[in-house]
Amino acid sequence: MSNRETAILLLSCRDRKGIVAEISHFISTYEGNILHSDQHSDEESQTFFMRIEWDLAGFTIPKARIAAAFEPIAQKFKMSWQLEFSSRQKRIAIFVSRFDHCLYDLLLRHAAGELTAEIRLVVSNHEELRGVAEYFRVPFFHFPISKKAKAEVEEKELALLAEYQIDLVILARYMQIVGEGLVERYRNRMINIHHSFLPAFVGAKPYHQAHSRGVKIIGATSHYVTSELDQGPIIEQDVARITHRDSVADLILKGRNLEKLVLSKAVKLHIEDKVLVFGNKTVVFD
Amino acid sequence: MSNRETAILLLSCRDRKGIVAEISHFISTYEGNILHSDQHSDEESQTFFMRIEWDLAGFTIPKARIAAAFEPIAQKFKMSWQLEFSSRQKRIAIFVSRFDHCLYDLLLRHAAGELTAEIRLVVSNHEELRGVAEYFRVPFFHFPISKKAKAEVEEKELALLAEYQIDLVILARYMQIVGEGLVERYRNRMINIHHSFLPAFVGAKPYHQAHSRGVKIIGATSHYVTSELDQGPIIEQDVARITHRDSVADLILKGRNLEKLVLSKAVKLHIEDKVLVFGNKTVVFD
Amino acid sequence: MSNRETAILLLSCRDRKGIVAEISHFISTYEGNILHSDQHSDEESQTFFMRIEWDLAGFTIPKARIAAAFEPIAQKFKMSWQLEFSSRQKRIAIFVSRFDHCLYDLLLRHAAGELTAEIRLVVSNHEELRGVAEYFRVPFFHFPISKKAKAEVEEKELALLAEYQIDLVILARYMQIVGEGLVERYRNRMINIHHSFLPAFVGAKPYHQAHSRGVKIIGATSHYVTSELDQGPIIEQDVARITHRDSVADLILKGRNLEKLVLSKAVKLHIEDKVLVFGNKTVVFD
Amino acid sequence: MSNRETAILLLSCRDRKGIVAEISHFISTYEGNILHSDQHSDEESQTFFMRIEWDLAGFTIPKARIAAAFEPIAQKFKMSWQLEFSSRQKRIAIFVSRFDHCLYDLLLRHAAGELTAEIRLVVSNHEELRGVAEYFRVPFFHFPISKKAKAEVEEKELALLAEYQIDLVILARYMQIVGEGLVERYRNRMINIHHSFLPAFVGAKPYHQAHSRGVKIIGATSHYVTSELDQGPIIEQDVARITHRDSVADLILKGRNLEKLVLSKAVKLHIEDKVLVFGNKTVVFD
Repeated sequence: MSNRETAILLLSCRDRKGIVAEISHFISTYEGNILHSDQHSDEESQTFFMRIEWDLAGFTIPKARIAAAFEPIAQKFKMSWQLEFSSRQKRIAIFVSRFDHCLYDLLLRHAAGELTAEIRLVVSNHEELRGVAEYFRVPFFHFPISKKAKAEVEEKELALLAEYQIDLVILARYMQIVGEGLVERYRNRMINIHHSFLPAFVGAKPYHQAHSRGVKIIGATSHYVTSELDQGPIIEQDVARITHRDSVADLILKGRNLEKLVLSKAVKLHIEDKVLVFGNKTVVFD
Repeated sequence: MSNRETAILLLSCRDRKGIVAEISHFISTYEGNILHSDQHSDEESQTFFMRIEWDLAGFTIPKARIAAAFEPIAQKFKMSWQLEFSSRQKRIAIFVSRFDHCLYDLLLRHAAGELTAEIRLVVSNHEELRGVAEYFRVPFFHFPISKKAKAEVEEKELALLAEYQIDLVILARYMQIVGEGLVERYRNRMINIHHSFLPAFVGAKPYHQAHSRGVKIIGATSHYVTSELDQGPIIEQDVARITHRDSVADLILKGRNLEKLVLSKAVKLHIEDKVLVFGNKTVVFD
Repeated sequence: MSNRETAILLLSCRDRKGIVAEISHFISTYEGNILHSDQHSDEESQTFFMRIEWDLAGFTIPKARIAAAFEPIAQKFKMSWQLEFSSRQKRIAIFVSRFDHCLYDLLLRHAAGELTAEIRLVVSNHEELRGVAEYFRVPFFHFPISKKAKAEVEEKELALLAEYQIDLVILARYMQIVGEGLVERYRNRMINIHHSFLPAFVGAKPYHQAHSRGVKIIGATSHYVTSELDQGPIIEQDVARITHRDSVADLILKGRNLEKLVLSKAVKLHIEDKVLVFGNKTVVFD
Repeated sequence: MSNRETAILLLSCRDRKGIVAEISHFISTYEGNILHSDQHSDEESQTFFMRIEWDLAGFTIPKARIAAAFEPIAQKFKMSWQLEFSSRQKRIAIFVSRFDHCLYDLLLRHAAGELTAEIRLVVSNHEELRGVAEYFRVPFFHFPISKKAKAEVEEKELALLAEYQIDLVILARYMQIVGEGLVERYRNRMINIHHSFLPAFVGAKPYHQAHSRGVKIIGATSHYVTSELDQGPIIEQDVARITHRDSVADLILKGRNLEKLVLSKAVKLHIEDKVLVFGNKTVVFD
């Protein structure tokens, strides 16, 4: 919640001594003021994770040259890393089917300044939500899906996403299996909301499954999409209490609150560069 | 939370008109004052459930004859039913292995007057917790388990439970599969605590499973024991938030709080006659 | 969650024997099937509360004559009571200032079928939210407020509410003290959302107060409006965890989620006739 | 959750560039491996807070000389700071009256290895809990309190705490106002549990106050003790949902779960050196 322009470094590497010292020395040498710094060491795999954010006001390396200047340190520690700037907002495409609650929620939070990103387009396999997109002045694209044309549609979607330079795809109750090509292109950059507390109730109709099992709590899970259904790295989960009085229809209704909260939370974490993927898990520097 | 002596009627039957009227008329006719009344209709199966509790002060049928007096109504509606009295405390046996946290929790809540029941004995396959039972002045029985003697041990346990007229068996992190004979004898009267948010992470080492899947929330589940592992009717569940910083050891530690709360809550609901089993689900009149 | 037409009786009276029997006998005699029944006895004040709902299909008294038929029972027990019908939706006016999140939330939940009521009009002291009301096709009325004209404006508002036969007024972050006349006319029928966990942080700028006190949890409270500021009967509350990292701006943002959930929950409880006011407290039959 | 010996530096100072770099350089120069590092900048007051923990294995400065070696950096930035070692467990005195649930909870968590500290003694103004302390083999001291002898008793208590070299005093539902001398001596080292969601329901009988106000959620608050009643810096809070059915006795019962969880959580945070006091607030590096 600030108007400062900042740089954010997200990195992971094999854990060893001196990483923090070297990075903070780098920032300090060029007159950067560190605003946030989080780190985590995974003992099992001996992996070190870091998110460090500094104020660019007074930083003596111009933005365009920071990456190159940092490169030697990254190489020394064999880091996986990315450099982000708070001034460069991520460009988002939202995929929907007919359910409007997650779409409205994302658009309203965006309008309220809660999600600092550009929502560039809405894609749907149905026409129903065109009016919603238009109310918020976001271009709407309709791609009807037929079994035959599936590959062809995916090609068009990929082209569209490329044209709009999309950084993040949000499946806001999209209800379709996304093709391999899209999944690969947006690896760790495509967020889905699943309406159960994963790994319970994978697949179709999780509220029906929950009702049938007689659980006392339902949940929702937001995760990056991988090629295995509902198995991707979990970003955020939340739950709500239910009772024997709740019908499946009640679960669907209560679940909508969860879906909205969990999806928007995950999106917010992602666009603020607070999520690092690690195997099939996430490190979330919240 | 009261010292009044009350009668509690728990029942289910096919839903039709007039059930509530007939039952409340019965109580009213004999000068009973209804203190609590809960009902539920399961629309799918057209089943009616009820828990009704009334003050016995001034009730004109003596306790010993209430059941017989109610019988005609029960037959008319083909009810499954049971009649309980608040003055007749349930007799409990607690089964444990080596973990002491759930045992302490139950014994302390009992000592504090939170659980209105008699804890008659503690059974264990190890000696470790004898001291705990003795501190609280509860008889402790040690039944070492070997693969060979399994059936024989179960026989002895059944005899012991019969001798002590046990109404409810609590598996307080017992860590053993209970034999069919015991399961059958204590059908809907044997409560287990499973250290996951069922149906996620059935079986062994659920905290390891949760850590490996990278969930952001862990849970605990209390359920009646059936012959299928971790598949019995769920009575109560609760959850706690975790992060990537939590090791398996941290999950075990955080989970202990959940296990204690969830198990004691389920036991309290059961001994206050607030749980009705219905297929593989429960109706909890809380 | 059902399409059945039902009658709902909400009542309170001095506790004594036979109330439930008499009411259920009344319903049963005229062939009504009781769908839900909840009761509560307040021991301190010896007051009995009940909500009973029955299916009107097959009920042999016509709707228009049920009240008269029930009157003798009501008189016998000296009940405060009201009779509602699920088919008669409550007519709602929403008062707002400039914040749009609660207004959007109510209108979207209404559009999604979550709130079974008629949202008849939006009243505001500003023009900003006219577009929102119009998008949802709800008439919007602008009453600018000046210190001088306060009484006059209230007169106009009362006339408007009367004209539209409004049953329930929702102050959806209205940010204005409502006049005595309105408060009196809508006693127990005007719901406010206060952005703190009452009774903590009464009055202005509760998020600033919370930040300054250094609490670790913030809340929101929905209550009926009385003439004493933030002192009315509480219907619903909820909370969210915060940390030292959260600025006042963050609290405002996190609080918006709470405000939406708590206000819509309270409204839903009210329009489903599940709230009974009792002194300065509520009995909520959820 | 580790057996490594570590050093922990807790500090605050005026925010400026280069602090993190200088500290991490110091640790790195002497071959320390940073395990955890948390920082926070309070924008309002321009204050910087940090907690940094490193592995002492291989650190080339002997423990006894680390403080002296760090002193120049501390002076340069005018830091308030403290250096702790994981191997040096804090020595705790627990003050109780007659309620045993918090005492049991602390002693059991300690026995289970959850609280890494030495519980050196239990102090009470009553005799009731002597048996509990003795069961856990902790010395028990009885100081009857009379209005006359208050100052004298406090003198004795101070002497006792000095003799046992107590680092942390826990008021585990002590139910007595602690004297100024004790408060001063244990400034930011004396933790109380208050049985309400502060700042709601300050002072006596908070559950009665909560019942009377008709809140839907109750809470508990753990805070450092200051001379103003219930006004000290809050370390941890938690809440539980209640309904109109809950009597004051029920609130007391539900509240006990909260009190135990919140107090033990606050104690754990303190003994792991994760709390920094800042004015009347805390920074909790969890």
